[in-house]
Amino acid sequence: MNKAMVFKITGIILQIEAILLLLPAVVSLIYRESAVWSYLIAAGASAIFGTLLRFVTKPKNTLIYAREGLVIVALCWVFMSLFGCLPFIMSRDIPNFFNAFFETVSGFTTTGASVLTGAQLDAMAKGNLFWRSFTHWIGGMGVLVFVTAVIPNMSDRSIHIIKAEMPGPIVGKLVPKVKDTSRVLYLIYILLTFTEIVFLLCGGMPLFDSCLYSFGTAGTGGFSIDSAGITSPYAQWVITVFMLIFGVNFNLYYLILMKRARQALKSEELWFYISMVAVCVIAIFLSIFKALPEFSSVNDTVRHVAFQVSSFVTTTGYTTVDVNVWPAFPKAIMFMLMFTGACAGSTAGGLKLSRVMILFKTIKKEFQRLIHPRSIRTIKFEGKALDTVTRHGVTAYFAIYMICILFIFLVVSFNGFSFETNVTAAVSCFNNIGPAFDAAYVNYDCFNSFTKTILSLAMLLGRLEIYPLLLSFSLRTWSKK
Amino acid sequence: MNKAMVFKITGIILQIEAILLLLPAVVSLIYRESAVWSYLIAAGASAIFGTLLRFVTKPKNTLIYAREGLVIVALCWVFMSLFGCLPFIMSRDIPNFFNAFFETVSGFTTTGASVLTGAQLDAMAKGNLFWRSFTHWIGGMGVLVFVTAVIPNMSDRSIHIIKAEMPGPIVGKLVPKVKDTSRVLYLIYILLTFTEIVFLLCGGMPLFDSCLYSFGTAGTGGFSIDSAGITSPYAQWVITVFMLIFGVNFNLYYLILMKRARQALKSEELWFYISMVAVCVIAIFLSIFKALPEFSSVNDTVRHVAFQVSSFVTTTGYTTVDVNVWPAFPKAIMFMLMFTGACAGSTAGGLKLSRVMILFKTIKKEFQRLIHPRSIRTIKFEGKALDTVTRHGVTAYFAIYMICILFIFLVVSFNGFSFETNVTAAVSCFNNIGPAFDAAYVNYDCFNSFTKTILSLAMLLGRLEIYPLLLSFSLRTWSKK
Repeated sequence: MNKAMVFKITGIILQIEAILLLLPAVVSLIYRESAVWSYLIAAGASAIFGTLLRFVTKPKNTLIYAREGLVIVALCWVFMSLFGCLPFIMSRDIPNFFNAFFETVSGFTTTGASVLTGAQLDAMAKGNLFWRSFTHWIGGMGVLVFVTAVIPNMSDRSIHIIKAEMPGPIVGKLVPKVKDTSRVLYLIYILLTFTEIVFLLCGGMPLFDSCLYSFGTAGTGGFSIDSAGITSPYAQWVITVFMLIFGVNFNLYYLILMKRARQALKSEELWFYISMVAVCVIAIFLSIFKALPEFSSVNDTVRHVAFQVSSFVTTTGYTTVDVNVWPAFPKAIMFMLMFTGACAGSTAGGLKLSRVMILFKTIKKEFQRLIHPRSIRTIKFEGKALDTVTRHGVTAYFAIYMICILFIFLVVSFNGFSFETNVTAAVSCFNNIGPAFDAAYVNYDCFNSFTKTILSLAMLLGRLEIYPLLLSFSLRTWSKK
Repeated sequence: MNKAMVFKITGIILQIEAILLLLPAVVSLIYRESAVWSYLIAAGASAIFGTLLRFVTKPKNTLIYAREGLVIVALCWVFMSLFGCLPFIMSRDIPNFFNAFFETVSGFTTTGASVLTGAQLDAMAKGNLFWRSFTHWIGGMGVLVFVTAVIPNMSDRSIHIIKAEMPGPIVGKLVPKVKDTSRVLYLIYILLTFTEIVFLLCGGMPLFDSCLYSFGTAGTGGFSIDSAGITSPYAQWVITVFMLIFGVNFNLYYLILMKRARQALKSEELWFYISMVAVCVIAIFLSIFKALPEFSSVNDTVRHVAFQVSSFVTTTGYTTVDVNVWPAFPKAIMFMLMFTGACAGSTAGGLKLSRVMILFKTIKKEFQRLIHPRSIRTIKFEGKALDTVTRHGVTAYFAIYMICILFIFLVVSFNGFSFETNVTAAVSCFNNIGPAFDAAYVNYDCFNSFTKTILSLAMLLGRLEIYPLLLSFSLRTWSKK
């Protein structure tokens, strides 16, 4: 393994984080908060450590293979979270290390699970609130994707890094050069975020809140920013629409930009996504209308149900109503949505719909094989024949995915909460949703430090799609061969 | 499809069921119960319907392919359950059809989930009690395996029937002829059951109870037979050991009979099974010792924990202590055991350990592929290279298995019980365990008729490993082509 290159790129990431940490410092400065010092110190620490990492090691070559790509991503995300939680601790807004680490990992992984109460949020420094939501925005598209976009001299081998960081079963280049692909992705990301901010401003939401909610929506994160929540129906609709927009594969937006909208509309995954959301909204509407006081009018019911379904399917995790007290059936639908996630190539977490579709197609093929053992039929996905490596990759991924969730559930159970709490906390953190049912619905502060650390790992595992983190734990990965 | 052959074999099965229904009639006669008439009528109905089915259709040929095998198994199991529940209804011990059907399916599929209370069991006719437990014994090894053993003129094509009925990823012939394989399997099954009866008798258990508990253990079913339960520590130990014995692949017993014990002891799956049971017993012992009043002495704790672990891992479902009130962590271990099941080729349900092992090996291979995309390494299982068809069959099975469980959970949620009840009822029925946690721990009577029917289907789906039943629902399966 090319360890020197791994450390070098980790160093670059920490230097970039140092720059990013200056943004909340500016926010704190504007609001005249003492938190500005925490951010300056954290930025300094990150910069110094990053520079050390970068110059202590001298790579003999810049070759990066799949293994290096996976380890780089794992290492960068862990270090980013470690340095990213420093301001919370230093500003005393989240004095406990495990809590601050949990909150930062939850931010970067766009989970949105929090250890804070509404009252604590209201008392928080604006700089901290900004950084919290901004980590969603950074984590959504991926910080390494960003690096490959801005750093000069990155060879096309950096595709291995993008592949490791971008979720979904098939990651390809939009344009011939990796650097340009990353730039296109970030351009679309910035444009869409900006559009949402403008829409929220038009509804009378203050600029600060508009930015924070837009960061949370864009990254499909879901941190709430105060005890009041999203109250205006207009803002709720805007956020619903944008959550759904950020759940679409960004390649489709690229196609639309290239005036190939017709090709974009042919996407099987897109139509699956739209139909699934529609079916779930209708099913929940029918089962919940007039069942609870807040669902007495058709208007309110449609709005809240559309919001909640979009929030869960895109793994954002914002809430406008108390999903935890819903009857068992609509709650079960929400639980199922925690697994699927939205489209691959979006900022959403979960299994990704293209994986779900490939799984269903594989099962169908297995049925055919049972009846006609000798028939050879290829599976088509998005108009192309699906190669067996991708297909078996997806079924193997599903297996390790479910096994990981079961193991996390087992370890979380150690904390002694209810079955529902433990299962949904494991599923929610692993799929980067945010809220879990029962005891962990309001926030995750009920868990002890050990469980919080396990759930932090679960969020990282889920966001990076398991392999990078698990591979980095293996000593053999680090061997020279 | 060769429909005539499908109906013919279904007819044979119903004729055999008629004969089997005479056994509880004899029991009722001995105890001078009026239930004897219910059994005679049910036997008559089954015989007449079977004979009609058999002679109305005239197969042009006896060719059976995989498709026929799957449909035959599905059809036979549904009809067997329909006729098998008649005596419960007619004797008024379970007057409601949905309850009686649920109980019978639970018996045949060796689930052991019941709608009856202890008091209802105590008041039940002995003939009914006998039939209930006897269905476990019939379903354990499979009624069609039995048919292939006893019916003359069965061609070797009946391997397709055995394959569809026998659980596990790899079903082969022990001896060159299918008929002989079935006979060997049943011989071992009868011998082991008989041994358990003798052991239980030696501990002072009455003959009737010994037989019933042995039927329940052999089929890994788990119906309790009275309100008292298994109270003697000796009987508890005997049943623990025999539950574990019936969880072992029967091929190994065949090898031992053939004096190839050394080869049997080389089984990877066997060692995985033993280690897993040991690890779970130790983990639960450590977390539960002195935590509850019944676990105050080492002796009692070891006995109860060993009993419960064996009961869940083999999907039997007998209980000697109230698992439902256990702390979250040991309960979570029990929940995990609900999925794994014991060895393939045993009477246990669940995923089967060989599938679990193949899944883990596939995941390991996927890791290697990520690091060294061009390396070609074969996966070995039980000393042989695992062919890709089997391997991909296992991952695809796992996908459809999890998707089925999630769907059943969703539909069960309609009934409005707690999340824990719904999840564990779906998992427990599908994996043929028996007890579910929370509301469905004591019995399943709390659910409405619709849910009971769904759970009956879940038990059948799980016992027959999904494909037979799902294929039979598809119209295309029934087409002539």
